[in-house]
Amino acid sequence: MISRVLAVDLPRHVGERVKIAGWVHRRRELKSVTFVVVRDRTGLAQVVSRSAGESGLPEETVVEVRGTVTANEQAPGGYELTEPEFVPLSEPAVPPPFDLYRPGMAASLPTVLDHAPVALRHPKLRERFAVTAASVAGFRSTLDGLGFTETHTPKIVSSATESGANVFGIDYFGRRAYLAQSPQFFKQALVGVFERVYEVGPVFRAEPHDTARHLAQYTSLDAELGFVTDHRDVMAVLRETVAGMVDAVAGIVPVPEVPAEIPSVHFADAQELIARHTDDDPRGEPDLAPAHERWLSEWAVRTYGSEFLFVTGYPMAKRPFYTHPDPDRPGYSNSFDLLFRGLELVTGGQRLHRHADYLAALLARGEDPAGYRDYLDVFTHGMPPHGGFAMGLERWTARLLGLGNVRWTTLFPRDLHRLTP
Amino acid sequence: MISRVLAVDLPRHVGERVKIAGWVHRRRELKSVTFVVVRDRTGLAQVVSRSAGESGLPEETVVEVRGTVTANEQAPGGYELTEPEFVPLSEPAVPPPFDLYRPGMAASLPTVLDHAPVALRHPKLRERFAVTAASVAGFRSTLDGLGFTETHTPKIVSSATESGANVFGIDYFGRRAYLAQSPQFFKQALVGVFERVYEVGPVFRAEPHDTARHLAQYTSLDAELGFVTDHRDVMAVLRETVAGMVDAVAGIVPVPEVPAEIPSVHFADAQELIARHTDDDPRGEPDLAPAHERWLSEWAVRTYGSEFLFVTGYPMAKRPFYTHPDPDRPGYSNSFDLLFRGLELVTGGQRLHRHADYLAALLARGEDPAGYRDYLDVFTHGMPPHGGFAMGLERWTARLLGLGNVRWTTLFPRDLHRLTP
Repeated sequence: MISRVLAVDLPRHVGERVKIAGWVHRRRELKSVTFVVVRDRTGLAQVVSRSAGESGLPEETVVEVRGTVTANEQAPGGYELTEPEFVPLSEPAVPPPFDLYRPGMAASLPTVLDHAPVALRHPKLRERFAVTAASVAGFRSTLDGLGFTETHTPKIVSSATESGANVFGIDYFGRRAYLAQSPQFFKQALVGVFERVYEVGPVFRAEPHDTARHLAQYTSLDAELGFVTDHRDVMAVLRETVAGMVDAVAGIVPVPEVPAEIPSVHFADAQELIARHTDDDPRGEPDLAPAHERWLSEWAVRTYGSEFLFVTGYPMAKRPFYTHPDPDRPGYSNSFDLLFRGLELVTGGQRLHRHADYLAALLARGEDPAGYRDYLDVFTHGMPPHGGFAMGLERWTARLLGLGNVRWTTLFPRDLHRLTP
Repeated sequence: MISRVLAVDLPRHVGERVKIAGWVHRRRELKSVTFVVVRDRTGLAQVVSRSAGESGLPEETVVEVRGTVTANEQAPGGYELTEPEFVPLSEPAVPPPFDLYRPGMAASLPTVLDHAPVALRHPKLRERFAVTAASVAGFRSTLDGLGFTETHTPKIVSSATESGANVFGIDYFGRRAYLAQSPQFFKQALVGVFERVYEVGPVFRAEPHDTARHLAQYTSLDAELGFVTDHRDVMAVLRETVAGMVDAVAGIVPVPEVPAEIPSVHFADAQELIARHTDDDPRGEPDLAPAHERWLSEWAVRTYGSEFLFVTGYPMAKRPFYTHPDPDRPGYSNSFDLLFRGLELVTGGQRLHRHADYLAALLARGEDPAGYRDYLDVFTHGMPPHGGFAMGLERWTARLLGLGNVRWTTLFPRDLHRLTP
């Protein structure tokens, strides 16, 4: 029995009789010759058959092909298999409702999503998830190198993490429970154990709006670290992490440069800039509008040559109760967003770490600390100054690849309307 | 400002004035001297103070300490900080309901779980999760090296994955949905895209029983690969993966040897062995009882010197409908379990890959294929022979560390009774 050779390895076997296996990507029958392109996980291999008809297998049928590796400049990749013998490994495939062999995917997003298990086979679509996988590998290896510990925390929780809104309820053995909107509370508690933790896992938001940037489930890249001076230490770790992610995908797709220090602008200064240079005057608003994020991103490219921009110091009013205030500027916080190509990619900041500060923050917002008892308890037992950040994986890949909808970078999206496949 | 030195790095700074930071692990006041042991993520550092009282900080209070690194054979690790200045970074800590500084954790499992965010700080408990993290890193790096792609699939699904039982229901925008019991259907579909995929993620089982080996949420290490001859190719990849996991934790805890080829016994032969050598006669039973798994594990140690044992060929009757039958032994399957130290650690096997076989398998079980339409559709579009496996991460760590309850290796377990912290 000869073992399988991958498409990418054909050049190492010129003149040899080998076995390849994969999907019939494209079949073209000419008068005296049939070209069959076979797709495997590494690429495409052309098979040339002189005996017309013997390879009458529909596209997407899975085949094993024995043949002789022959150099041919016209063949994709420069090599092809000649004198082939075909053995089908699947039933003849039913044609998918789009052509997987064309350079681009012509079908609309809804059609692609309806038929995701087959549509994702398109090399261009598939490549996006190679970028996703490499990004996560870069995220992890960077944080591993910085002394972080990977954790796995509950996705079923007894109360809403961030707010009561947009949370999925579950029947938990007859009790009411919820799907976790973030690992926020867990990762903070785990700073008390490991000092530095990260988690890559699903988070759930019952988003009632049908937008291009929100999903009911997405993959959150979360990190949290203790013994920080303030949010700037968190930003430095985030910069390293993004650089590690970019390095990890650099072999697959073109990547942006990550400056040694990502430029940073305070929220108040950002509003001043927008007021001075655009027709808008956002001063006094507690948050940035999407159009303002886009303008600031363009400004950072013009001013610093950077596609990344930190906006720091968001008003306390619009940040969660666990946000640490800026000790020098009342009303502003030790928080940040990282903008990338016009969109908020990461949110983070320093958190409160003293129990008394939590009580005061909750009371100031009219919330009952009793509802957060489990979360707050850890702060009575000694917690260091700490902070962290969260990045949406699908959003990262979409921005990196210039795709306007996060559904293009989610294998099987879940949203208001979509629960299958 | 001097930067922080970690406990593990003190030997490199003898004679220098340094800053350390961490938790007051243990404080002992003698007549003329106070010993304060500070714990950080790398270990313990002893601080010696001659001016009694100045370090009157309760255990678990977070502190920064400046001091001079001094060699002292009596000190834990051989070095200590002298002439210290203490700066508390947290409020004085409320003492936890157990002593974190004792060599072992004296509290019972329920007490530990009730106070997990603080209990996990105990170095012995914490170490278990370093083993968990390293295991997952070994799982991934092995599969990355074998050409696998990491994926992230939906945890919210429209129907139960494996069976209707033990599934959590959710209210999904007014529709009924469920928490995924496994990524089984997704990983099979993704074999059609990437050939080789893995996922590390939460799975959910509404286990109505309170046992030492089941949880409502656990972390599943899933892999699936195409172009296999049969289940033996899957077992070979699993053996590599387990060896990679063992290598990854070898620096932290003692590890078992993974044989170059893990011994394997067919289910029918395993029953014969048990009938011949014990008072039990399980022949005719469709599955192995826990006592039989224990006996087989001991037998593998005696016979092969291996703590790992594959049992292959489980009867079709007890395996899921997607299981590939053994073409040579009707009634038996191309499936396997991997036993480790008396317990089933991994389940896997070859799956059906032809659409017609799926229809026949479901009809033979009296199930309506219409209920599996999304899943089955992919098999009409060309799927290669494939198989895979799933391992419970918490169970792996528990077995490896000789712990009898998976709750000891879960940060924040979820079960019939426990939804917090």
